Amino acid sequence: MAEKGEVPYKTYLEENELPSAWYNIRADMKKKPEPLLDPATFKPVTAEALEHVFCKELVRQELDDTTRFIPIPEEVQKFYRMFRPSPLVRAYFLEKALDTPAKIYYKFEGNNTSGSHKLNSAVAQAYYAKQQGLRGVTTETGAGQWGTALSMACAFYGLDCNVFMVKCSYEQKPFRREVMRTYGASVTPSPSMETEAGRRINAAHPGTTGSLGCAISEAVEAALSRDGYRYVLGSVLAQVLLHQSIIGLEAKTAFDKISEKPDVVIGCAGGGSNLGGLIAPFMGEKLRGESDCRFIAVEPASCPSLTRGRYAYDFCDTGKVCPLQKMYTLGHDFIPSASHAGGLRYHGMSAILSELYDQKMMEAVAVEQTDVFAAAENFARIEGILPAPESSHAIKAAIDEALLCKAQGRRETILFGLTGTGYFDMTAYAKYNDAQMSDTVPTDADLEASFASLPEVR
Amino acid sequence: MAEKGEVPYKTYLEENELPSAWYNIRADMKKKPEPLLDPATFKPVTAEALEHVFCKELVRQELDDTTRFIPIPEEVQKFYRMFRPSPLVRAYFLEKALDTPAKIYYKFEGNNTSGSHKLNSAVAQAYYAKQQGLRGVTTETGAGQWGTALSMACAFYGLDCNVFMVKCSYEQKPFRREVMRTYGASVTPSPSMETEAGRRINAAHPGTTGSLGCAISEAVEAALSRDGYRYVLGSVLAQVLLHQSIIGLEAKTAFDKISEKPDVVIGCAGGGSNLGGLIAPFMGEKLRGESDCRFIAVEPASCPSLTRGRYAYDFCDTGKVCPLQKMYTLGHDFIPSASHAGGLRYHGMSAILSELYDQKMMEAVAVEQTDVFAAAENFARIEGILPAPESSHAIKAAIDEALLCKAQGRRETILFGLTGTGYFDMTAYAKYNDAQMSDTVPTDADLEASFASLPEVR
Repeated sequence: MAEKGEVPYKTYLEENELPSAWYNIRADMKKKPEPLLDPATFKPVTAEALEHVFCKELVRQELDDTTRFIPIPEEVQKFYRMFRPSPLVRAYFLEKALDTPAKIYYKFEGNNTSGSHKLNSAVAQAYYAKQQGLRGVTTETGAGQWGTALSMACAFYGLDCNVFMVKCSYEQKPFRREVMRTYGASVTPSPSMETEAGRRINAAHPGTTGSLGCAISEAVEAALSRDGYRYVLGSVLAQVLLHQSIIGLEAKTAFDKISEKPDVVIGCAGGGSNLGGLIAPFMGEKLRGESDCRFIAVEPASCPSLTRGRYAYDFCDTGKVCPLQKMYTLGHDFIPSASHAGGLRYHGMSAILSELYDQKMMEAVAVEQTDVFAAAENFARIEGILPAPESSHAIKAAIDEALLCKAQGRRETILFGLTGTGYFDMTAYAKYNDAQMSDTVPTDADLEASFASLPEVR
Repeated sequence: MAEKGEVPYKTYLEENELPSAWYNIRADMKKKPEPLLDPATFKPVTAEALEHVFCKELVRQELDDTTRFIPIPEEVQKFYRMFRPSPLVRAYFLEKALDTPAKIYYKFEGNNTSGSHKLNSAVAQAYYAKQQGLRGVTTETGAGQWGTALSMACAFYGLDCNVFMVKCSYEQKPFRREVMRTYGASVTPSPSMETEAGRRINAAHPGTTGSLGCAISEAVEAALSRDGYRYVLGSVLAQVLLHQSIIGLEAKTAFDKISEKPDVVIGCAGGGSNLGGLIAPFMGEKLRGESDCRFIAVEPASCPSLTRGRYAYDFCDTGKVCPLQKMYTLGHDFIPSASHAGGLRYHGMSAILSELYDQKMMEAVAVEQTDVFAAAENFARIEGILPAPESSHAIKAAIDEALLCKAQGRRETILFGLTGTGYFDMTAYAKYNDAQMSDTVPTDADLEASFASLPEVR
């Protein structure tokens, strides 16, 4: 046990301590992210235009960069009670195994059936869709966490849910697909023959196993072509980071309860939903000059948008149907090598995080997947949780930081985000266990080629 | 949210409220379970004989039917901190969906990587093996929960772990196997060619996909034939129910905190580990005349040891290498039809629960698997947790009880055990989703035939 007077292994908030509002970090940013641009005109997109694709209230949240706190609807708070609070865990066993003077904490978001933090935004988005009187929503999913989370939320609110799942995932992860079906969602392998976009891709690339960019285009088209449907997205957007701020808000309250505060906050970064949510209130303090906390985004070396990308306007999807945003990007034509962290294989990065990174408020590192799986297996054996490949990027960086503390004799307090579990990723673990996993990193020439797809804006 | 003054959705204990001793229900039983018998002599087995197979301290616990509380070693308490306390959940959403006046609670044991309550005993058994200076342990696993839990515990304590996995599960559940490998266990499909027992079965039944009974025999033989190894078992035995009492003890403390007490406690029953642990302290009160709480064991109609079995001495395994115990049994030759609740496919029942059932301290019901999966899917959509097929037997019975309360206008407080999650059972859910699941119940003639395998004792 924790020694007398020490913090417990796990800190849970009481229900009356749970956040009743999300934190909108843009309100504390002096220099805010650049506006979204209409994909046809390259002019700032209007609310009216966005409302054809997205739910009305979500558009309002997307465009609101001044309101600091946005109330969480009571119905959403109730749903959160089903799987929240998530614990703030003191990693005593890991500290001991590393023999580090650092104190390591992680906020664990994997204790729900979707297996990740994705449910935090899925329930909000489904709730607003229901409030708007919609019949259903469409979305895409790669690794499957987001599709699963959205299926759960839609089942709860009685909404139809159509998920376009990247075909290679659809085939490799039949169990993910089955969870979504159990929650009543229809799951379509993408590219499909159900949409114009899908038929076009299938004709141009017979036998293709799809991509996230194509699945987005199909999901948007499906939403636009059906009465009473809208499209929803699980990362990248400001609204998603807003909902995910629940992670950071809970973590901060828990730290206050145990009279601690992190010196460094570490999270994996694909589109940025988990990292943006985890760091939000801590970054807010830094933006207001109240703290000098460090922040580290961890990305796969195979898809290094922050560490090797360019800060530029780019399309959010390959099909160029979604708005453009100014972000760190590898170019919307960039195809990351096959890696097992499907949730991190995105060419761009949240506009909010991109801007913070550009302002040097945040650092970034890129790590290779065999190192990530070594850290994951180590962590599983020491801390008793089998982590998702995505989450394991943060584990790897947190361990590196703790070992650096050891080498330098510093007693830092480290917080990292453990976004989810790897129970549906055992094919990846098998590859690692059989020593058949390799690393592929894009060459400079690869990146130059994909940067060529960046649009000329203004 | 819960209305002001009402109990929260989830009640967690503080670390200083966690149990520091297991509760040994036999101490409160006036008529105790009959002694184990040696399989060769049919005489009460001695500690010395058992210590060839089992760890010394576990033998002591197995034979101790008078000590009411047995301290949980500090090291085991520390491990418990990694995944405990488990929440006591108020099922507000389920109550509302059923429109029942009953209050429904469940104790959720699935929030750990083994996916079930099995880890509660696995860590204790691995700890005692390590304390004894052993090199490793052997065991069998059917559905895979126990094997996974033991792998995790052995990885933590640095013990070798050899799991004999029923061959059909080994082939159907490659991901379960991979989790065990990730935790460093070796997993052998049973029947194997590594043991005399396995070779014998393979010769007699070429191409057999194995059975739990055979896997037990192989695991026992493997333990006996290797230096520094013992055999461990995940259910049925009194020591396992002792460790699992942590579930009930936590639940009782949580109920005390919210000033509630259950009128009825419901759990699924295969070998009895979860049910015996969940009900322990509540049954203790009943045995001492302090409560008139009801208890319901829920078993599959395909393997109805309590509702259709005989209370008699029988072998615990098909290979007749383990001691005999007096229990409700279908006969050790009984082969349950293929069902998707692998954890409930056992011919007998814990001697403690059998005795309590015989004393009419407990009721039992049998339910069919298609009804169970209907309840499971309903529960998943309403309460946001995808349950294991085993656990779903308890869900089905709890829903039936709540609906009976509604019909009769009674405001009962129901507690059921939600033992685990179904993330590795999606093949079963797929069958249900595709309407390809059926029910098979043994005929009276089937049972008469298997009762013929009961040994004549005395």
